[in-house]
Amino acid sequence: MTRPMNFNAGPAALPLAALERARDELLDFAGTGISVMEHSHRGKEYEAVHDEAMALLRELLSIPSDYEVLLLQGGASTQFAYVPMSFLPQGASADYIVTGAWSAKAHAEAVAWSHVAGGTARVAASTEASGFTRVAHPEPVELDSRAAYVHFASNETIHGVQYLTLPRFGAAPQVCDMSSDFLSRKVDVSSFALLYGGAQKNIGPSGVTIVIARRGFIDGGRKDLPAILQYRSHSANKSLLNTPPTFGIYLARNVLLWLKEGGGIEAIEARNRAKAAELYGALDASPGFYTCPVEVGSRSSMNVVFRLPTEALEQAFLGEAKKNAMLGLKGHRSVGGIRASLYNAVEPPWVSALASFVKDFARRNG
Amino acid sequence: MTRPMNFNAGPAALPLAALERARDELLDFAGTGISVMEHSHRGKEYEAVHDEAMALLRELLSIPSDYEVLLLQGGASTQFAYVPMSFLPQGASADYIVTGAWSAKAHAEAVAWSHVAGGTARVAASTEASGFTRVAHPEPVELDSRAAYVHFASNETIHGVQYLTLPRFGAAPQVCDMSSDFLSRKVDVSSFALLYGGAQKNIGPSGVTIVIARRGFIDGGRKDLPAILQYRSHSANKSLLNTPPTFGIYLARNVLLWLKEGGGIEAIEARNRAKAAELYGALDASPGFYTCPVEVGSRSSMNVVFRLPTEALEQAFLGEAKKNAMLGLKGHRSVGGIRASLYNAVEPPWVSALASFVKDFARRNG
Repeated sequence: MTRPMNFNAGPAALPLAALERARDELLDFAGTGISVMEHSHRGKEYEAVHDEAMALLRELLSIPSDYEVLLLQGGASTQFAYVPMSFLPQGASADYIVTGAWSAKAHAEAVAWSHVAGGTARVAASTEASGFTRVAHPEPVELDSRAAYVHFASNETIHGVQYLTLPRFGAAPQVCDMSSDFLSRKVDVSSFALLYGGAQKNIGPSGVTIVIARRGFIDGGRKDLPAILQYRSHSANKSLLNTPPTFGIYLARNVLLWLKEGGGIEAIEARNRAKAAELYGALDASPGFYTCPVEVGSRSSMNVVFRLPTEALEQAFLGEAKKNAMLGLKGHRSVGGIRASLYNAVEPPWVSALASFVKDFARRNG
Repeated sequence: MTRPMNFNAGPAALPLAALERARDELLDFAGTGISVMEHSHRGKEYEAVHDEAMALLRELLSIPSDYEVLLLQGGASTQFAYVPMSFLPQGASADYIVTGAWSAKAHAEAVAWSHVAGGTARVAASTEASGFTRVAHPEPVELDSRAAYVHFASNETIHGVQYLTLPRFGAAPQVCDMSSDFLSRKVDVSSFALLYGGAQKNIGPSGVTIVIARRGFIDGGRKDLPAILQYRSHSANKSLLNTPPTFGIYLARNVLLWLKEGGGIEAIEARNRAKAAELYGALDASPGFYTCPVEVGSRSSMNVVFRLPTEALEQAFLGEAKKNAMLGLKGHRSVGGIRASLYNAVEPPWVSALASFVKDFARRNG
């Protein structure tokens, strides 16, 4: 069957080449006659994949040598807890910039931990009053100059809000949840103390979490937690402290290879910009019919959210889209409406097809 | 190529049927034209798999209705930390039974947490002085009758030590790391407050962790931790609090179906007993040549560890075994020697071949 056009918000579309390779060698990895899933994580066959995934991340993102690359589990939601556990000591304060559901959750988990361990998790800025329709800019933010770190999310998957230029909030160490735009564009890693992301948007299947952190920042983390909760333990063991999610890392490796072979971050960034421009352009062409709640300067290139005049029309839109093999367009249950996620593996022709459909649907129903 | 005989300790051999199904539908899951990895975890296609995996676990293990089944991430090593975080409050004490490397690690993580939160993690019994060559029996153990819980490991993967009959240590809630013999034999779930295991031995690929816990025990856990660290949050959200490792759970579902279709726990237990009896029998037939350090009454049916007269002979044994397509027989790097892991998916003919090789090698080198 023809491959449907998959606009899921995550888990999301994966590059066909990465999946085909996984299928072709699922029962016989690297000529060993067994699946990559059946290999020991301490064996040379799996370790080659593990090392290659890390090396590709370093190469694609130009990660400086004083940064560690960790391959963990538990998703970004687990990092919401682990970051304050390691880096928000008793008596200290961390600044949170809240621009949508995910950065709000990160803040809530830090507040919970601060009640256990005695620190303070402060909201330094929030765009909630405006309905999370824009990012927060450094200027009007009241930062604490002594903050242990500043936390923000580069892209908000549910609200479709993205920092089009990555900000810097004051002089404190910058910590960023980059789950939903990781590897979609160039990033100056050196401006962050720690950045993290779940794999299931641009990197691979769910169940793998990437953390990139400055070694000195990791070294300054709390030392008396259980070892498995400390970044330093994973760093010292090359993310083989305990059994890693080997198949997920293998598939991420396939995705990273696909990204490199397609021209790397520069090429994918241009492709992503063009996809987003085409879809927003189609929506803007029918201003009375489609509403994009997000301010133009904060419009996400990864998650395009929009509304139609009525919920009945939204249902009709989703139904027709599905008949045209366009999947995953329903908005998050907490906000409703439509959401098209345009991650790396979403092919430009799919976006063109969606843009045409957007225009055609408005013409027929507007 | 012929499938090699895989005796890996974990990640380990998986049932061929489960892998073949994954390969055949890797690009087209349930007629949807996309991979199971590309489906939303909130969509009906994936949710059917998620629910089926939980239902199969309930059916295979006859899990009582007042128990929750959780599908988590992070491996058993993460549970080593999460168990005391939830269930070892300030001022309380928990009893740990240490019979090998893994239960020792569980205890060490609980000690770390107790320094953070003010409880006590006590070693109620340890067989370390005897070199971890037997289990600890309830009788000589000095239990704390007011313990918050008693923790033990049903099988020690590295030392090859297993409780042949599952014990009960006093009246406190029993918590068990069942990673390496989970689903290998009948278990009276109702005698445990909580049991857990990483999937990568008998259940599926690495990256999935199963927790089975009495609802009342979960409800009594600490309530002020970050939500993602609390069992109750996962329980209340059917293990969909955040994005689960969808492909790993899908593959575990395939394995659970294979187990059910093969006759369930009763059939696999008989098969596992026969495999272990055959291999131990072959080793015992050359008592001057092979040494099994573990006491007969504690010999694991999952991990058969043994030594040869010299390390040179062990190297020769491993080399010849590999030439005969027998993989994964090297003992853990911390203890050396030979280890054959005989998990559920290890086929009886592989064990027969290994037993023959064991006899033949002794005849030629003894």
